[in-house]
Amino acid sequence: MNIPCSRALIYTDWTLIEPHFDPDLLHARETVFTIGNGYLGTRGSFEEGYPHALAATLMHGVYDDVPVVYTELANCPDWLSFVVIVDGERFRLDRGEIIHYERQLDLHHGILSRSVRWRSPDGKTLDLRFERFASLANQQVLGLRCQITPIDCNGTIEVQSSINGYPENQGFDHWERLDQGKTEHGVWLQVRTRSTRIELGMAAAMTVVGTDAALQVTNTPGYPTLTTTFLATAGQTVSVEKLVTVFTSQETERPVQAAQDKLASLPTYAMLLDAHQRAWCDVWQYSDIEIGGNTTAQLAVRYNLFQLFIGAAPHNDRVSVPAKTLSGLGYRGHIFWDTEIFILPFFILTQPAIARNLLTYRYHTLNGARRKATHGGYKGAMFAWESAATGDEVTPRWSMPNDPYAEDVRIWCRDREIHISADIAYAVWQYWQTTGDDLWLRDYGAEIILDTALFWMSRVEWNPKQERYELCGVIGADEYHEQVNNNAFTNRMVQWHLEKAVAIYEWLQQTFPDTATALAQRLQLTSERLQRWQSVITQMYIPYDAKTGLIEQFEGFFQLKDIDLSQYEPRDRSIQIVLGITETNQRQVLKQPDVLMLLYLMRGTHAFPYRHDVLQTNWHYYAPRTDITYGSSLGPAIHAILAADIDAADMGAADPYAQFMQAALVDLEDTRGNTGDGIHAASAGGVWQAVVFGFGGIQLKDSGPVATPHLPLTWTRLKFKLHWRGTWHSFDLSPSSAQARNSQVPAIQGFIFDLDGVLTDTAEWHYRAWQRLADEEGLPFNREANEALRGVSRRESLLHIIGDQPYSEAALQTMMERKNRYYVESIQNLTPQDVLPGVIELLDELRQAGIKIAIGSASKNARTVIEKLGLADRVDAIADGYSVERPKPAPDLFLYAAAQLGLDPSHCVVVEDAAAGIEAAIAAGMWTIGLAPAVSGASPEEHRVGAAHIVLPNLMGVHLTDLQTKLSQCLKEGFHP
Amino acid sequence: MNIPCSRALIYTDWTLIEPHFDPDLLHARETVFTIGNGYLGTRGSFEEGYPHALAATLMHGVYDDVPVVYTELANCPDWLSFVVIVDGERFRLDRGEIIHYERQLDLHHGILSRSVRWRSPDGKTLDLRFERFASLANQQVLGLRCQITPIDCNGTIEVQSSINGYPENQGFDHWERLDQGKTEHGVWLQVRTRSTRIELGMAAAMTVVGTDAALQVTNTPGYPTLTTTFLATAGQTVSVEKLVTVFTSQETERPVQAAQDKLASLPTYAMLLDAHQRAWCDVWQYSDIEIGGNTTAQLAVRYNLFQLFIGAAPHNDRVSVPAKTLSGLGYRGHIFWDTEIFILPFFILTQPAIARNLLTYRYHTLNGARRKATHGGYKGAMFAWESAATGDEVTPRWSMPNDPYAEDVRIWCRDREIHISADIAYAVWQYWQTTGDDLWLRDYGAEIILDTALFWMSRVEWNPKQERYELCGVIGADEYHEQVNNNAFTNRMVQWHLEKAVAIYEWLQQTFPDTATALAQRLQLTSERLQRWQSVITQMYIPYDAKTGLIEQFEGFFQLKDIDLSQYEPRDRSIQIVLGITETNQRQVLKQPDVLMLLYLMRGTHAFPYRHDVLQTNWHYYAPRTDITYGSSLGPAIHAILAADIDAADMGAADPYAQFMQAALVDLEDTRGNTGDGIHAASAGGVWQAVVFGFGGIQLKDSGPVATPHLPLTWTRLKFKLHWRGTWHSFDLSPSSAQARNSQVPAIQGFIFDLDGVLTDTAEWHYRAWQRLADEEGLPFNREANEALRGVSRRESLLHIIGDQPYSEAALQTMMERKNRYYVESIQNLTPQDVLPGVIELLDELRQAGIKIAIGSASKNARTVIEKLGLADRVDAIADGYSVERPKPAPDLFLYAAAQLGLDPSHCVVVEDAAAGIEAAIAAGMWTIGLAPAVSGASPEEHRVGAAHIVLPNLMGVHLTDLQTKLSQCLKEGFHP
Repeated sequence: MNIPCSRALIYTDWTLIEPHFDPDLLHARETVFTIGNGYLGTRGSFEEGYPHALAATLMHGVYDDVPVVYTELANCPDWLSFVVIVDGERFRLDRGEIIHYERQLDLHHGILSRSVRWRSPDGKTLDLRFERFASLANQQVLGLRCQITPIDCNGTIEVQSSINGYPENQGFDHWERLDQGKTEHGVWLQVRTRSTRIELGMAAAMTVVGTDAALQVTNTPGYPTLTTTFLATAGQTVSVEKLVTVFTSQETERPVQAAQDKLASLPTYAMLLDAHQRAWCDVWQYSDIEIGGNTTAQLAVRYNLFQLFIGAAPHNDRVSVPAKTLSGLGYRGHIFWDTEIFILPFFILTQPAIARNLLTYRYHTLNGARRKATHGGYKGAMFAWESAATGDEVTPRWSMPNDPYAEDVRIWCRDREIHISADIAYAVWQYWQTTGDDLWLRDYGAEIILDTALFWMSRVEWNPKQERYELCGVIGADEYHEQVNNNAFTNRMVQWHLEKAVAIYEWLQQTFPDTATALAQRLQLTSERLQRWQSVITQMYIPYDAKTGLIEQFEGFFQLKDIDLSQYEPRDRSIQIVLGITETNQRQVLKQPDVLMLLYLMRGTHAFPYRHDVLQTNWHYYAPRTDITYGSSLGPAIHAILAADIDAADMGAADPYAQFMQAALVDLEDTRGNTGDGIHAASAGGVWQAVVFGFGGIQLKDSGPVATPHLPLTWTRLKFKLHWRGTWHSFDLSPSSAQARNSQVPAIQGFIFDLDGVLTDTAEWHYRAWQRLADEEGLPFNREANEALRGVSRRESLLHIIGDQPYSEAALQTMMERKNRYYVESIQNLTPQDVLPGVIELLDELRQAGIKIAIGSASKNARTVIEKLGLADRVDAIADGYSVERPKPAPDLFLYAAAQLGLDPSHCVVVEDAAAGIEAAIAAGMWTIGLAPAVSGASPEEHRVGAAHIVLPNLMGVHLTDLQTKLSQCLKEGFHP
Repeated sequence: MNIPCSRALIYTDWTLIEPHFDPDLLHARETVFTIGNGYLGTRGSFEEGYPHALAATLMHGVYDDVPVVYTELANCPDWLSFVVIVDGERFRLDRGEIIHYERQLDLHHGILSRSVRWRSPDGKTLDLRFERFASLANQQVLGLRCQITPIDCNGTIEVQSSINGYPENQGFDHWERLDQGKTEHGVWLQVRTRSTRIELGMAAAMTVVGTDAALQVTNTPGYPTLTTTFLATAGQTVSVEKLVTVFTSQETERPVQAAQDKLASLPTYAMLLDAHQRAWCDVWQYSDIEIGGNTTAQLAVRYNLFQLFIGAAPHNDRVSVPAKTLSGLGYRGHIFWDTEIFILPFFILTQPAIARNLLTYRYHTLNGARRKATHGGYKGAMFAWESAATGDEVTPRWSMPNDPYAEDVRIWCRDREIHISADIAYAVWQYWQTTGDDLWLRDYGAEIILDTALFWMSRVEWNPKQERYELCGVIGADEYHEQVNNNAFTNRMVQWHLEKAVAIYEWLQQTFPDTATALAQRLQLTSERLQRWQSVITQMYIPYDAKTGLIEQFEGFFQLKDIDLSQYEPRDRSIQIVLGITETNQRQVLKQPDVLMLLYLMRGTHAFPYRHDVLQTNWHYYAPRTDITYGSSLGPAIHAILAADIDAADMGAADPYAQFMQAALVDLEDTRGNTGDGIHAASAGGVWQAVVFGFGGIQLKDSGPVATPHLPLTWTRLKFKLHWRGTWHSFDLSPSSAQARNSQVPAIQGFIFDLDGVLTDTAEWHYRAWQRLADEEGLPFNREANEALRGVSRRESLLHIIGDQPYSEAALQTMMERKNRYYVESIQNLTPQDVLPGVIELLDELRQAGIKIAIGSASKNARTVIEKLGLADRVDAIADGYSVERPKPAPDLFLYAAAQLGLDPSHCVVVEDAAAGIEAAIAAGMWTIGLAPAVSGASPEEHRVGAAHIVLPNLMGVHLTDLQTKLSQCLKEGFHP
């Protein structure tokens, strides 16, 4: 039981642990283990390489041209390249044998490490420990260390430490290799992007500690390499340290010289690592969120903040956070509304200097936005839906399948998803309101807001019949509807934008009249024009029914064919894929919140249409029609916050915590299957907002931020800081008084499931095996007699069947083996179809709630069964017939399982279908749930599981909240685990 | 005068020489110096690399997926990579100094070599001679040798000989690197294409001859390298030989093993080279064309045949010749009608086994053609306009500019340019007729013809009103018109195709009845269907006016707005680019012959509508409306052949020889500016056809091929072989009797131009300089006096001006320097605008006719003037004031120029504007042309150039043919040079 049974990650407060290497998860885990420093990001690919690895180091602003999608972040030269050769055999995880493997990401100190015990194909065993960091103290410095310890052999070790000048963007190499060479400190490489001609210089040094070894330089074209060879002795560790420096022509005129100079001036690896760790401690001083009572949530939240932080540039105001940060090639490094609406609040309230950089990027791309407006025949600045270096529109026009007969699909967002300009204005306003940074607003923000307002004035249409202003032919926040008129989200955001534009212009006139005059002249803001702004504000059409409080997503939405999403469950893809683009367009189904997104954005400002009753009404209408699981990853966090606003009793199917965890674990658990493309940065930003605005209930009042906490059930503490108008505000929240009343809710942290009869019906297969044995032996046995064997060990069962027949111990052994053979033969035929109804849903819900899961089964075949059922990924530990000596009803098996999960027994719930199991669980001091098929005439108490705290017929439709409610009831009634 | 003055190539009978390295021509010359063996092609990139080089090794069939254009030939690992390092300084042509450079392509033996004398940045000089070949005797073997000789130093030489596993297709790397390693024979690399999963193994060995040197292996990831280091001594040559083997999974299951085994079994470099040369001699035995009297034409023709031959696979019938052969990335390695219509005749008539392979490729891609038909809603097989491995349509749908606001342009050829299916049928028929290969027709060809006929039957439309069959919505051979109805070319080719399909089916029924039955069953050829074929044949509409003999290119063509192409001259781009796609569509302008192309194809078969008078009529209509210079490169050769058919007197502006040379030199001279993308293979095929069918006048009669030669004026002999129905027919043609009458035409091989007053008007600048000097000195001088200085040296001029004034020799020197300073100051302002009218056109015409060009000017500034005028590229040699001692009228200067051109004086024409020059030319035994502005009252005889053979006012509108006619007249009148 020492080898982890699942592919799951292990979560501790600060460290993410991957206990096992699974090639199937290669790309997702490369994303998950991304490190960075806001200057560059490096995916968690292995130093030695791996077939089909998607290694990448991405740097802010290093865009280069590419067909169809116009521009993308160029994968930069790979600084990791590090090959270890043992007696001529190259260390690689796809050869030889992995005896031990563990990878750790230490979020607190920004260090990624990996320990591997590897046996080479010719039988030599060695330990390798890799460690890497992208210095936060010194953004152009990268460090890598490999500690090599032969275990059972002496041998020649050769290490090749290179700069790989052939990085690729899915096959495309953006670089021209200009020059390379060596200095007394190491090797260097000079490259330049093909089209944008951004130059990059990288230099690398290598130091060997623990043995004498000479360094050699090989200047293979494009691949400068430092090589060392030494004799290694069993049990003795040699460390090889690699330090790398990197500069681009964005910071300095001669990057390759800067890289060489920097390399020459570096202190030791240890000193650099120390400075790096101290820098990370400083970051967490301000940006950490501490969660008590739930390690999964704690780690997941910190993980999301870590990824956000390393994705944003601290020293560069001409770049922003790409939708997939610098962690993957998805969306080509393009920048969306994700930054302003989802990611920015975290930075505004904990790292305002970075927030300012991100918004200043939009200022610097105003000329691109103006070109886009001009091209479309509009005035002012129309921000790009997808933006990169210049701010020009870089959304691809087409999604092009490579099948020569398939049709190209037009992507309309570039033309129609215009709300981005209002989203940016919204973020400018939020930044100003929160920070009070008047000078920035004067110098940058005002121009953004006013010139985009000018765009809106050329984009709105006057409908003379209805006497109102309209916006037609748009895509709203919900992208399932590709051409709509008067989208509520867009229209209201534009109206709000114009309101704020008027306010800011008035403020400017009063506070900085010179700036106001200069801007008015430059942007041609005449008083006639400003007057027309006011009439657009007044007469903008918002499809809102004041009587019902219902907002129509766009004109005609309510006339579309309705949908019942439950009819499409279970599914593992979006509704758009299930139904097709056209059909989805014609249905009342949403990819992501639209009206609800509007309510969320107005929630903080308390502006129309946000009102509690309006939220209730629209929530009930739209939430069930939103494809929250496989639609946009932007949705779940927003749903979680709004759901937290709604009275619990009135919540319907909404479970804010489940939706929150869906967002928090989207990459760690790869729940959408696309983590390989990079971190879901907007979701990560949403997670911060859900914790602070949702569970913390923070509202930004004029007097400062105020908390109204409603913590999730398992959370005992929530602690964070916010920076508001120059001052830090610390929050250390406990469950609210309302929650305090419910504090009798048991703190459930783990579930232990019996296998037979609970997760699957192998009880039947066992019965048949025993029956066959009994028949062959001429022993009396039947279904009724079999009932007594539930939860009982194999030996006990056999003894029960033979009764007082005289069998020798040897004969007993043979019979047990026979029965087992019959059984094992039958269970080979098990498939995921054999999982009992409700099990998968409950397991997923538990996982999303951060609750750990174990199997506690007397069967020696438990592992096989779990694998055949396809449940291995959903289980954190297995206690089986091999785990302990004493069978149920002894508590040992469950205690073993709890220990494997690292949990106190009192925080565990056992689900059993046998009296012996319930008895064992109670003896272990755990909560118990007994499953008993409804047998006519028998009350639960009379059942075999009558002693359980909760008795259910089966797991169908069972939700965690129900179980928690029932266990609370038990607690109130004086029962304890 | 030893350094060649121009960037031009030097042509000898068998060897192409590049005497000078010009980085501006890098990509074009990489194409020009492509070598290959029908298995692979390797561009002429330098072994040591060069910035922005487009190095490529392309292999038949090694396609991989790529966006937008679906599939492309993957650039294969680079076997050339060879780095020479002298005392730490890497040999590269963009550093240090090139003291001597010469590259040679020996067509006779298929060997590319390069000699460089290079001085390193730190002043060490060495000679390097590179040589390479792709073995024709053993297609998986490649050889490279570098001979290194230090000139003025001893030093440490390091050589890195690698397999570069990071090849790229304009940035895209198609390869996964699977493994690499070393054996006792060398290093190896195993890679696989990303999508199509074609595996490739390459192995390399290195041998050092001439010194003791140990080899080292460095296995840098993806870049296995053999390194050697040795001490080199001044004057002593060390040779490094590199042998490479390559296999793909198309030929063998384990290519990397095959490459290693092959490498282990190789004989020496010298033995391999010898076998390779012998194999090339064999090829020329059959495929050579020998041309007497014109070295340029001789080399150009052989060059085109060489490139055709290395582009076709001798041992693989699942590939064909891409539009750019294996010499460049243009058109992505896709296969067009170029192969069947332009290239195939060369192979059918000189290498029929290869021709069979090329056609069998179409058989193997029938399933792709069937998929295309099915996808379009048709029956049978519809061949792809662009075809690759499978025969599925791979024409890109869009031409996508990378400007985010530019519109994507739809490429309609995939949908509409349907004549390809008839073109293939045409080629099948030609192959069968020429070879008599009945078995191939039975097993392959018949199915191609019949299944494409079925496609036509589902594609034609019955027009009930007109009672005729039509083909609407097509693109014909002329691609300037993108959607037309009843294109004459297409309709007639389809009709012809159906005629032949009926004939072949009948032949099959008689000759191979079993095959006929089987095919009929498989293709569902019912007798009803066959009957309908006949009615389509009878009732197919061809827009031909029997009264006028004029064929309308398509319905409504004559209603389009007409064009006068001369109004757009001069231009350096196509009319489509000048006018735009839409406007061009609406004009009577052709990208390439369409009706004339049809006449050409029917010419050989003597089928409708080919008749001499029909050709005359349509030639006069269509030739002037065809964008022959910058439209399609497929056009010129075809025009050349048809023009040769037309009575010379009736030829109009057509000059078959000029158009022929335009085709023959399209890559050598890069006349279309896109040679960097690869060889114009169809043009090369057209060149062979123009020589054989045009100038040789070959017609394939039932008794065999018959020649009716009409050789170009300068050709004294034309010799070639043709393989017809199992027998070789040799032709050794001389000028025909008609030509014999004209044999008094002087064999002009070179033109020598005076500069001042001939190519530009610097006479005026000289006059002003002399006038200034005279004025300053108080000497009498004026325009009239200046006339006497024409063609006179500086010293003689000065002596003339000073008359009998007593000046010391020192004073004379100073005055000459002063005058020269005045003059040189003024000529710095010369630009190409200062070239006299008609000069550029005549120089280009001469070059295209293979006539060499020199400058013969007394001026010491001639070189500067030529450069300022932008004429350096158009000139082969310069004789100037530094070249000889004795000035004109001594013949020395012109004799010197003729020697530089390698010509006998009697084959040279001097163009002069001064009496002294004419006198000098006559003394040199050359033909003379005198330029004399028409002065009223003065007869030419009275002119300063009155002694010239021809006197012209200037070069405006002067054509070579006119000059030849006039010189012939001189000859008849008893004049000689």
